[in-house]
Amino acid sequence: MTVTPEQLAEIAAARSQSSTTRRPTVPGLEEILYEAIPILDHGFIRVVDYMGDDSAIVQAARVSYGKGTKKVSEDKGLIDYLMRHRHTTPFEMCEIKYHVKLPIFVARQWIRHRTANVNEYSARYSVMDREFYIPAMDQLAAQSDQNHQGRGKLLEGAEAAYVLDILKKDAEHNFSSYEDMLNQDAAGNQKDPTRQGLARELARMNLTLNTYTQWYWKIDLHNLLHFLSLRAEGHAQYEIRVYADAMLETVKRWAPLAYDAFTRYRMGGVHLSSGGLAVVKALLAGAKPEREQHGLSAREWRELMEKLGLEG
Amino acid sequence: MTVTPEQLAEIAAARSQSSTTRRPTVPGLEEILYEAIPILDHGFIRVVDYMGDDSAIVQAARVSYGKGTKKVSEDKGLIDYLMRHRHTTPFEMCEIKYHVKLPIFVARQWIRHRTANVNEYSARYSVMDREFYIPAMDQLAAQSDQNHQGRGKLLEGAEAAYVLDILKKDAEHNFSSYEDMLNQDAAGNQKDPTRQGLARELARMNLTLNTYTQWYWKIDLHNLLHFLSLRAEGHAQYEIRVYADAMLETVKRWAPLAYDAFTRYRMGGVHLSSGGLAVVKALLAGAKPEREQHGLSAREWRELMEKLGLEG
Amino acid sequence: MTVTPEQLAEIAAARSQSSTTRRPTVPGLEEILYEAIPILDHGFIRVVDYMGDDSAIVQAARVSYGKGTKKVSEDKGLIDYLMRHRHTTPFEMCEIKYHVKLPIFVARQWIRHRTANVNEYSARYSVMDREFYIPAMDQLAAQSDQNHQGRGKLLEGAEAAYVLDILKKDAEHNFSSYEDMLNQDAAGNQKDPTRQGLARELARMNLTLNTYTQWYWKIDLHNLLHFLSLRAEGHAQYEIRVYADAMLETVKRWAPLAYDAFTRYRMGGVHLSSGGLAVVKALLAGAKPEREQHGLSAREWRELMEKLGLEG
Amino acid sequence: MTVTPEQLAEIAAARSQSSTTRRPTVPGLEEILYEAIPILDHGFIRVVDYMGDDSAIVQAARVSYGKGTKKVSEDKGLIDYLMRHRHTTPFEMCEIKYHVKLPIFVARQWIRHRTANVNEYSARYSVMDREFYIPAMDQLAAQSDQNHQGRGKLLEGAEAAYVLDILKKDAEHNFSSYEDMLNQDAAGNQKDPTRQGLARELARMNLTLNTYTQWYWKIDLHNLLHFLSLRAEGHAQYEIRVYADAMLETVKRWAPLAYDAFTRYRMGGVHLSSGGLAVVKALLAGAKPEREQHGLSAREWRELMEKLGLEG
Repeated sequence: MTVTPEQLAEIAAARSQSSTTRRPTVPGLEEILYEAIPILDHGFIRVVDYMGDDSAIVQAARVSYGKGTKKVSEDKGLIDYLMRHRHTTPFEMCEIKYHVKLPIFVARQWIRHRTANVNEYSARYSVMDREFYIPAMDQLAAQSDQNHQGRGKLLEGAEAAYVLDILKKDAEHNFSSYEDMLNQDAAGNQKDPTRQGLARELARMNLTLNTYTQWYWKIDLHNLLHFLSLRAEGHAQYEIRVYADAMLETVKRWAPLAYDAFTRYRMGGVHLSSGGLAVVKALLAGAKPEREQHGLSAREWRELMEKLGLEG
Repeated sequence: MTVTPEQLAEIAAARSQSSTTRRPTVPGLEEILYEAIPILDHGFIRVVDYMGDDSAIVQAARVSYGKGTKKVSEDKGLIDYLMRHRHTTPFEMCEIKYHVKLPIFVARQWIRHRTANVNEYSARYSVMDREFYIPAMDQLAAQSDQNHQGRGKLLEGAEAAYVLDILKKDAEHNFSSYEDMLNQDAAGNQKDPTRQGLARELARMNLTLNTYTQWYWKIDLHNLLHFLSLRAEGHAQYEIRVYADAMLETVKRWAPLAYDAFTRYRMGGVHLSSGGLAVVKALLAGAKPEREQHGLSAREWRELMEKLGLEG
Repeated sequence: MTVTPEQLAEIAAARSQSSTTRRPTVPGLEEILYEAIPILDHGFIRVVDYMGDDSAIVQAARVSYGKGTKKVSEDKGLIDYLMRHRHTTPFEMCEIKYHVKLPIFVARQWIRHRTANVNEYSARYSVMDREFYIPAMDQLAAQSDQNHQGRGKLLEGAEAAYVLDILKKDAEHNFSSYEDMLNQDAAGNQKDPTRQGLARELARMNLTLNTYTQWYWKIDLHNLLHFLSLRAEGHAQYEIRVYADAMLETVKRWAPLAYDAFTRYRMGGVHLSSGGLAVVKALLAGAKPEREQHGLSAREWRELMEKLGLEG
Repeated sequence: MTVTPEQLAEIAAARSQSSTTRRPTVPGLEEILYEAIPILDHGFIRVVDYMGDDSAIVQAARVSYGKGTKKVSEDKGLIDYLMRHRHTTPFEMCEIKYHVKLPIFVARQWIRHRTANVNEYSARYSVMDREFYIPAMDQLAAQSDQNHQGRGKLLEGAEAAYVLDILKKDAEHNFSSYEDMLNQDAAGNQKDPTRQGLARELARMNLTLNTYTQWYWKIDLHNLLHFLSLRAEGHAQYEIRVYADAMLETVKRWAPLAYDAFTRYRMGGVHLSSGGLAVVKALLAGAKPEREQHGLSAREWRELMEKLGLEG
C-alpha cells in the first residue's frame, strides 16, 4: 500500500490547516500541497513546502523593490530571455521541498545530484517497511542490443512470468530473513525470546535494491530544472523518469512561465556542435554535405539527422 | 538616505497584501516581512521570503508525515540534540531570503561564503547610487598593535577629523568623476552633448570600495548559522558583524528553538583541543599543569586561560 | 577475492612508471600510490592521485609566490593556527583521489557527503561481480538497547551462526537469480538461447545491499577532514569507520602537519556548550555545580562528565 | 610592474626544482608551470599545480584499474561522447590551481562562480600595492546603444584622453589618501610620528575598484570549462575575457582531447529552441517559415538567423 490510513489522516489534517501570509503564494500549487501523487507500485511524491514563484525570478533579475510595476507580458519576455541565455541565478531564488517514496536503486541514481538538501529514512534507527518495486508487465524489457545502458524489446510470456516470479519471491524471502535476523515481527514484537536480534544497521544489508525508502528532498528551481532535464528525458531509466515527469507537472503549477520557457528552450531544444552547425548551413545553402568532410563520427551524424528529422 | 520614498511605498504595498496558505507560517517573522532594518549609515537588511520553521527541522529529522504528534518539549530536546551532535542536514530544510544593501568591501567578505544564492545589482546594466559608507566616530579605530587584522584604540580628534575628511571627499570626488565619464548627471540626463560617455562596465572601476551595492541573498538555515557563527563573532570586522547581528535577530523570530540551541551550543560554547582538555582535567584533579608539558603554544595557553576565565 | 591477478598486474604496471615533475611531490605518499589497501572482506582503498601538500596550505594562507622563505617550525605554527581558528579555505588547496571498493549500504552513507566528485561503477552498463560483505564474527552485534542507531553485545554461538548463514545464503541466492534473469553466466555467456535476458538496469534491483560496488572519489583536504571527523569517529558505523581509518593513515603520509593539527584540535578535542563551560568554570572555582542550575539535560550532563573524565 | 624581481627569482627557483612522481604528468603543462602569463597592464595568470589529464577522464568514465588498454583513438571518441551528451562527472576528476592577479572589479565578477576554492590576498592583514588597471586606448569604449550591458564605439581623441586622465588621477590620488590614512609610506615606514594610523581593514575602503588584488583559485576541469564557456565568450566583459582566453590556452596544453571536444561541442556549437528547430526543419523542407507562426520573438528570430548565417 502506498499510503497508510494513518498517513492519509495526517495529510488531511495538514491540508485542513491554513494561515495568513504576506509571502508570495501560488494557489495552483496550494491546491495539491501535501497530497501524495502515486508513482510506480508503492511510491509517491508530495510537495510539502515551497518558496517564491515566477515573480521571484523576475524580482531577482531586476534586483528591484517589491513586485515592480511591469506587466505580465514583460515578465514572460524576461524569463524567456534568462532561460535562453542561461542566466541561471534568478531561478535559484525559488525553492521547493518534496517528500518522496522510491525504490533504493532509484534513490542511488537520484542522489548523484549533489545540489539538493536531503533527509532520508534511516535503516540504522528504524525498521524498513515490507514494500518492494515489482515492474509492471509493460516494463519488463530485455537488454537493448544497441545501447549498453538501455532497454530493448519486452520480455515475452514465459520469460516475463519467470522473471516476475524471481523478483517477487527473492524480495519477500530476503525481507523475511531480515525480520528473522532482527528477531522481530511485522508488528514490532520479539519473535524468539532466546535470541537477541541482529543490530538494525547490519540486518539491513540483506534487503534487495528494490526495497522502498523515503526522503525529504529540497532544491532550488534552477537545480531542479537541471535535474529534470536529465531525468525527465528519453534516455533516463523509466523508474526515475516517472518521478521526474510528475515533478515537472508540479513545476507547471508552481512557476508556469519558467515551466514554459524550460519546455521550449531546454527540453524541446537541441544542441548543434560546430560540425553539426556547418552541416545545417551547408544544407540550407542547397549543398550535399559529406559526413567526413565535417569531421562527424558515424554516431554523431546519425544523431544529427535524427534531430533534424532527416533520413541519415 | 537608506530607503527612498518610492521604496517605502513599495514596501508598504507588499506588506499590505496577504494570502491564505497551507504552508507552515511564522507570525513573528511575518510581522517584519519586507521591512527594511537599517544597518550602518545607508545599509539595511530585509527578510523578503522564508520557508519552514522549527517544526520543519523536527519533521526532517523524523522523516515523518505531517507535523507529528510529539509535544513541543520533545521538539526542543530533539533540536538541541541535533545541534549538539552536529546533525546538520535537518537544519537545511528551512530557507530564508534577504534583500541586503551593503558597502562593496563588506560584500567582498560576505560573498566568500559560497553556499548561498545571490543576485547582485549590476553596475554593467545600471548606474550606481551616490551612497558611501563613512564610519561613525566611534568606529574610527587605529590598527591593532597585537592583531594583524584587527582594530586598536580609537583615533583621537585631529586625526579622526583628518581621516573622515579624506573618506568623504575621495568618495564624493570619485563618484563625480564616474558621472563625468558616463557623461550623465544624477537625473540620468546627458551632461555634454558632444561626448559619448564611457561604457558603464568601465566607468564603475573608478568607484571606491565603500560605495553601496545591494543584493538578494538566499540561504538555508544550517548554512546561515554557519555564516553567523563566523560573522556575528567578536573577531569579525565590525562592518559585517552588524549585518550578522541583525540577521541573528531575524533567526530568533523565525526558528526560536534552533536559535536557542545555536546560542548555547555554538556561539556560547568553546572548543578545547586534546591538549586543552588534558589541562582542564589536570586542573580538575587539583594538579598544576605546565604549558610545555601539554604541548600548548604560548598563544594557545593564553587563549585557553581566557576561555576558562583564569589568569594566564 | 579483493583484487584479481589482472588488476594486480595493472597496479604493478602503474607503479613501475615514473615521470619528472615540477609539482610539489610527497615521497611518503608516492610510496603507496596505486596500491590497494584491503578493507573488510573484499573492499579496498587506493590513492590514485593527489595535488599539493602541507606547503600548499601555507602558501595559500600567505598568498605568496613559490614556497616562501619561512622555516618548517613556522609552517607548523601557521597550520595549527588555521586549524584551531577554523580558517578552512587554505586546506581546500590540496586535493586527493581514491579508488574505493565498498558494499552498497556503505556507499549509501558515504554519498551523503556532497562535496566530493564521484564516478561509480554502473550496473546499467555492466554486470556486477559476485562479491558480498559478510561480517566477521567479532562484528556480529545485537541492537544496542541504549542507542537507537548503535550496536550492543556480540551475538552468541547459535544465533551468530544462524545470522551468518542467512546473510551468505541470501546474497548468493539473489546473485544467482540476478544471473538467471540476465540469462548470463559468470563468464558472460548466454545461459539459455531461448530467452532474451532482462535488461541490466532492471535485473540489478534483485541484488542485496551488501553487494560490493566501486568508485573514484575525489575531494579536497578540508572536506576530507570533515568527512573523517564524522566517519573515523566512535559513533560511525564500523563498516564505514574502517574505510575512514585507512584514509586517515593516507592523510598522515600526505600532509603530516595538517594531520597532526587535525588530531589535536578536531579529533582529540571536545566542544563545551555555554552551560558546559559554566559547569567547568564552577568546578575550577571549587564549587559543586548542579545540573539543573546550569540548564543541562540529564543526557548532556552525562556526556559532559564523560568528556571531563569525571563520574556523573 | 606585473612581476617584481624578487618574484621572478622565486618563480625561477620553483621552476628549477624537479621531483620524480608516479602520478600522471603532462609535459606540455609542466613546460609553463609557475610562469606568469601577463594579462592586461599589471595582471597575470600562473598555473601552479594540476592533477590528472585526459586519461583521468577516460579512467573515471570506465571506472577501470590503471590506464586500461584502449587506444588513443578510442579515448578521443569517448571524451567526445561524454562532452556531447553532457556526462560531466568524469571531467571533474581533473583539478587545476591558478595564481591570478586581477583588478577588483574583475574579481567581483569572477567570484560569482561558486564551485572553486579561493584564497585571496587580504587587505585586512596587509597593505595593498599601488597598481591599478587603466584600459588601453583600444578598449575605451562608449556605452552600447543596443545592449544594456555592453560596449559601443571607441571614444575619440579628446574624450578618450579626458577619461584616461580621470582614471589615472583618481586611482593615484585615492591610493595616496590610503597611505596617508594608514600613516605609512610605500616602504612601510610611519609617515607622521604624532599619528596612530587608521586600521587597514578600514583604510582599504578608499581604494578604487581598478586596484589589483590576487588570489589562488583551484577548480576541477568540468567547472572550469563551464566558467570558460561563459567568460571566454563574446558577451563577457573584455577585462575578464582576456583571463579566460589565457586559461583556455592552458587547458589546451593540459587536456588536449577535452579541449578539442569543448571547442567543437560547447564553444563552437549553438542551441536551438523547440521553435528554432521547427524553423530549421521548415527551411530544410523548402518552406518559408514565418516568425509568428513558430512563436519566436523578434529578438529570438534575429538571434536564430545570426546562428544560421542567414539574413533576417
